[in-house]
Amino acid sequence: MKLVDLTVKDFVEVLGSDAPAPGGGSAAALSAAMGISLTKMVCELTIGKKKYAEYEDEIKLVFDETKELQQHLLHAIDADTEAFNVVSAVFSMPKETEEDKAARRKAMQSALEGAAESPFNMMKLMVNALEVTKKAIGKSNTNAASDLGVAALNLKAGLQGAWLNVLINLSGIKNEEFVAQHRSEGEKLLAKGSLLADEIYMETLKVV
Amino acid sequence: MKLVDLTVKDFVEVLGSDAPAPGGGSAAALSAAMGISLTKMVCELTIGKKKYAEYEDEIKLVFDETKELQQHLLHAIDADTEAFNVVSAVFSMPKETEEDKAARRKAMQSALEGAAESPFNMMKLMVNALEVTKKAIGKSNTNAASDLGVAALNLKAGLQGAWLNVLINLSGIKNEEFVAQHRSEGEKLLAKGSLLADEIYMETLKVV
Repeated sequence: MKLVDLTVKDFVEVLGSDAPAPGGGSAAALSAAMGISLTKMVCELTIGKKKYAEYEDEIKLVFDETKELQQHLLHAIDADTEAFNVVSAVFSMPKETEEDKAARRKAMQSALEGAAESPFNMMKLMVNALEVTKKAIGKSNTNAASDLGVAALNLKAGLQGAWLNVLINLSGIKNEEFVAQHRSEGEKLLAKGSLLADEIYMETLKVV
Repeated sequence: MKLVDLTVKDFVEVLGSDAPAPGGGSAAALSAAMGISLTKMVCELTIGKKKYAEYEDEIKLVFDETKELQQHLLHAIDADTEAFNVVSAVFSMPKETEEDKAARRKAMQSALEGAAESPFNMMKLMVNALEVTKKAIGKSNTNAASDLGVAALNLKAGLQGAWLNVLINLSGIKNEEFVAQHRSEGEKLLAKGSLLADEIYMETLKVV
């Protein structure tokens, strides 16, 4: 069963249980999925309103982007737990002979790379979602300004949370080039997205 | 049907729709519910482990607190939308006579106070959840350090998001004493909780 098909209550409860997955990665993805969904809602509450007619075309494009990002981020909730499950599976591989051990080490490295890639790819989606959300500032229904603020807050929490999950997986990876590249690009994504989120939050604070 | 009984996918999709509720308040509550659940998970991954035996009693107490807060925050997801629905219902009250209008104004003031109280009460739970999460720092399974970090991030996003929802509702309330008291106490909760969240995040960054 997919995580997104659990009820909200069951998802929260399995997240809080000692089951190895889901963990922080899937929670980060759901935070961000909620974030971009709030941006989508604000677009819908803007489109068709006379007061915002001059921005209608622009907001319709933003709306289309939010729809796509919403689906990608929903997908990431399960993708992250699947990537983690690959790591878990390695723990049950045999470790009797030297060949066993070598195969296990190789499988673990490959699994950890997958488990780092998953939140890393989320971070790209989250920065994109923040760019999209920023486009709605000043051009969307101010009655829903607080929702745009919560969108930015959830996207930032998702971004920082995904970054922690990149880092914890990188810490076990021996391929130095992989680690250096993901660390450097991840730091850039984190900085860029955090700045965008803070800008959006400050703008909405002025309006509420 | 309660929001917590929707599937995660349906909740995210109804959040992103132009249905008036749920909005940012319920999203903030779910962020925080995920946050405290991750703290609960970290406690479970610590209890019974030899390495953390000296903290066992303390972490068991933290665990009990996380269980209770998890249920309160799950409850807040629906409570916030219910409070918002009371505001929506006022819009369909008659406004023909002067008496109608007076009754409508009175009902709106009462509804807005309820809609401000809801995220305000959430903020108290969230600050409490951050205090509880902080107790686990340095005394819990470091393999799950990133999860404790994501807990703090989600609780902070929830806290800031709830605050935006307090503010947007206060802006329509005429009872100056109510507004002043909630604004002043809310600012204190926001400052206290944000500091706690940042401390926890920085501590986990050192470990991952």
